[in-house]
Amino acid sequence: MNKARKTKGGSAETALKRRLVDACRILAMAGQGDDVWGHATARVPGTDTFWMKPAGLGLEEIRAEDLQLIDLDGKVLRGPHPRHSEVFIHAEVFRARADVGGVVHTHPVPATVFSSLAVPLRPIMHEGTNFVPPDVPRFDETTDLIVTPELGRAVARTLGARPALFLVNHGIVTAGATIEEATVNALLLDKIARAQLMVPGGTPRIWTSDDEALVKRKRIYSPEALASRWAYYQRVRLGKSARS
Amino acid sequence: MNKARKTKGGSAETALKRRLVDACRILAMAGQGDDVWGHATARVPGTDTFWMKPAGLGLEEIRAEDLQLIDLDGKVLRGPHPRHSEVFIHAEVFRARADVGGVVHTHPVPATVFSSLAVPLRPIMHEGTNFVPPDVPRFDETTDLIVTPELGRAVARTLGARPALFLVNHGIVTAGATIEEATVNALLLDKIARAQLMVPGGTPRIWTSDDEALVKRKRIYSPEALASRWAYYQRVRLGKSARS
Amino acid sequence: MNKARKTKGGSAETALKRRLVDACRILAMAGQGDDVWGHATARVPGTDTFWMKPAGLGLEEIRAEDLQLIDLDGKVLRGPHPRHSEVFIHAEVFRARADVGGVVHTHPVPATVFSSLAVPLRPIMHEGTNFVPPDVPRFDETTDLIVTPELGRAVARTLGARPALFLVNHGIVTAGATIEEATVNALLLDKIARAQLMVPGGTPRIWTSDDEALVKRKRIYSPEALASRWAYYQRVRLGKSARS
Amino acid sequence: MNKARKTKGGSAETALKRRLVDACRILAMAGQGDDVWGHATARVPGTDTFWMKPAGLGLEEIRAEDLQLIDLDGKVLRGPHPRHSEVFIHAEVFRARADVGGVVHTHPVPATVFSSLAVPLRPIMHEGTNFVPPDVPRFDETTDLIVTPELGRAVARTLGARPALFLVNHGIVTAGATIEEATVNALLLDKIARAQLMVPGGTPRIWTSDDEALVKRKRIYSPEALASRWAYYQRVRLGKSARS
Repeated sequence: MNKARKTKGGSAETALKRRLVDACRILAMAGQGDDVWGHATARVPGTDTFWMKPAGLGLEEIRAEDLQLIDLDGKVLRGPHPRHSEVFIHAEVFRARADVGGVVHTHPVPATVFSSLAVPLRPIMHEGTNFVPPDVPRFDETTDLIVTPELGRAVARTLGARPALFLVNHGIVTAGATIEEATVNALLLDKIARAQLMVPGGTPRIWTSDDEALVKRKRIYSPEALASRWAYYQRVRLGKSARS
Repeated sequence: MNKARKTKGGSAETALKRRLVDACRILAMAGQGDDVWGHATARVPGTDTFWMKPAGLGLEEIRAEDLQLIDLDGKVLRGPHPRHSEVFIHAEVFRARADVGGVVHTHPVPATVFSSLAVPLRPIMHEGTNFVPPDVPRFDETTDLIVTPELGRAVARTLGARPALFLVNHGIVTAGATIEEATVNALLLDKIARAQLMVPGGTPRIWTSDDEALVKRKRIYSPEALASRWAYYQRVRLGKSARS
Repeated sequence: MNKARKTKGGSAETALKRRLVDACRILAMAGQGDDVWGHATARVPGTDTFWMKPAGLGLEEIRAEDLQLIDLDGKVLRGPHPRHSEVFIHAEVFRARADVGGVVHTHPVPATVFSSLAVPLRPIMHEGTNFVPPDVPRFDETTDLIVTPELGRAVARTLGARPALFLVNHGIVTAGATIEEATVNALLLDKIARAQLMVPGGTPRIWTSDDEALVKRKRIYSPEALASRWAYYQRVRLGKSARS
Repeated sequence: MNKARKTKGGSAETALKRRLVDACRILAMAGQGDDVWGHATARVPGTDTFWMKPAGLGLEEIRAEDLQLIDLDGKVLRGPHPRHSEVFIHAEVFRARADVGGVVHTHPVPATVFSSLAVPLRPIMHEGTNFVPPDVPRFDETTDLIVTPELGRAVARTLGARPALFLVNHGIVTAGATIEEATVNALLLDKIARAQLMVPGGTPRIWTSDDEALVKRKRIYSPEALASRWAYYQRVRLGKSARS
């Protein structure tokens, strides 16, 4: 019985780690890798521990056996590699938000450049309605790495209940109920920031109203749509299992 | 005899579905895919039914057996997959325009960003003369999805007799006598919108006059050119049959 | 003896056609293809005939056996395919310029967009000094296709003794002593136009002076550099013969 | 014993040449190649000689046996190929800076375009803090090639003790304690210049303060980070040895 439970626990762990590995690879394929920098985490459901991509490896290199199990104080409980010094972004968001099951921090160029414009993000495409209104929070207490619990808490405070924020002149942090949602939030934020940078002057003239954006958010960024998108990534980007 | 006719009907159906599959793949290769979103349809000639790309799959994944047969009320007559909720774009354009044999709706980034500028599309390259004059219509009654027959009719009204329109902050709709023409219209519209976004300020100083544009349209965007272009896509992009 | 001479003539012809095929493929690899449009020609040395890429095929598809032998009136002397209607660009440049052995006409997006800005081309990178000073001529008698000998002569007049011109809102024409030089001129013109479009506002503040540009042109765009560049293209882009 | 020392010397030489070959390939993969132009050098530690990529080959083509051993007067001591005429950039930087073990000169488009804007480089992303403050020096005594020892000395004077400079309207020069550091400096400079060109108007509103930039530089651009990055390039870009 004990053994059976362990096996069952092992299966759940294996599945969660596989999902995080997929997330890392999808982030890399979307151009969010920055050599060995950028990280993603998935909370072990119902616990104060999470799996994390280790330091020293690129997002596209991650295998399940590389992942680290970490607690909310940033202590590595299991895992063979060095830990990212910015673990506190993840730990403090998990601590502050019981609803969050996944966190992503990357350095995508368009989103980071966008944060240097000091202009509001406008929903000029569907993707913007996933975030706006209200505008995406900007963390600017420092542009340096988030290497202490205090800074992690400050980031978590700025994030509040939102799906994403800009680390000004540094990168982005996204959160989601699952690692899949956090990952898609990172993809959508970078796509809409890239789009707004294509607007001459960075200042579009026409965008979706706040009221309509909220309606669109609910319709377009539903759990069903997320599942459909993720299954697509698995089939087409990761080349997994033929489609049904 | 019955059997022979059936076989003949089957052949025409197979051919039409194959053309629609090619269109989906060419749209995807041109960067018009948006994960599982975007769709294309081909009317069954002389009928009020059309074949449509189903929901839940990317444009590059579509195979002939995935296609759905749908009527002008959006009812799925055949086909194994869920239907796109925006079927009414296609149904209502087909209803309003007996001359239309193919419709495309996608979310290409440059064309969608362009629609947020509120500047006229200018024929700064050949491709613009396929659409201008007059300027490309902009549908802005909503930026949300087109999920009702009423909205579909509104889109069809805005399209009028034109080959394409912008769904502002959403994407594009193109139509053509055939699915091939609708597809090429989508490619050309995105290309010329992308070009105008490269103009600093979005406002070129020199473009083809209306009179000359009409002459060019006739010369350059002829049925012969469409056939030549499509045969090229089949050879070079789809890797079909060696060229003759 | 007759036979020997024929073989020798055949060898020269084969070599010239192979060079033109290489040029077509290098243009395609540089992104200068526009489906089946765009063409390149190589004069048969010492004659009023030239080999031309045929209509209906993409630049990357061309094989030696596809090439057409054409005279200065645009008459096809040999070759299996339809002729580009714009043959007169090439014929009239060859007629006007005994020094020209190769001509290219393509529709590269950056160079064509650049021509809509009505700003001078500035040598903000080495490549600009291949063309400026004086500024690149702009042909704007029409933005339509060059389908008559008269229009071809007008283009040749605007080109004068220069290596390249913009066909405003249409594309570019480049010429060279050889097809290799004409091809490299097309690559360099598109590269420098693309660079200037990257300048916010399209108006750089610092560029090479006219006097220095002339010195650089001679040093950097020498026949030796052209040969070195072309050999590189053959090795790295066309994957021909290992390097020596 | 003599033989043993020779072998040992040979091993060190082989290792240094292999590192320079890796650097050339990584530069090419980062888009810093310009046909056969651009070069990189690695000093033989403790000597006034250095290994250099030869002329006539692209950065991606270089093999260890192609490299040339050159002295500070630009004299080729060993090596089969012609020498780049701009050898004096490297020789004079090595002469002026005993701390420099590697030098890179390339023509990356974004960095070169950026130098034509005459605006300060701003650390709008981490990468900028590797260079600023103070601003990146700009060499503008000529925009022509650096083909004499005098010009080489002038470039070295402008570089001073810094990791990089712009050769205005020409390209970049970077230096480092090792060829790896010089190469990464070239990658980072092009990335941050490209980022600033994405800012509409070229003038961001928010960037890292000088004080914070100096803190970030030390933290982010440490020798450990360089080693981690280079190991990643070897694994993922060069496909060398499986990761440990």
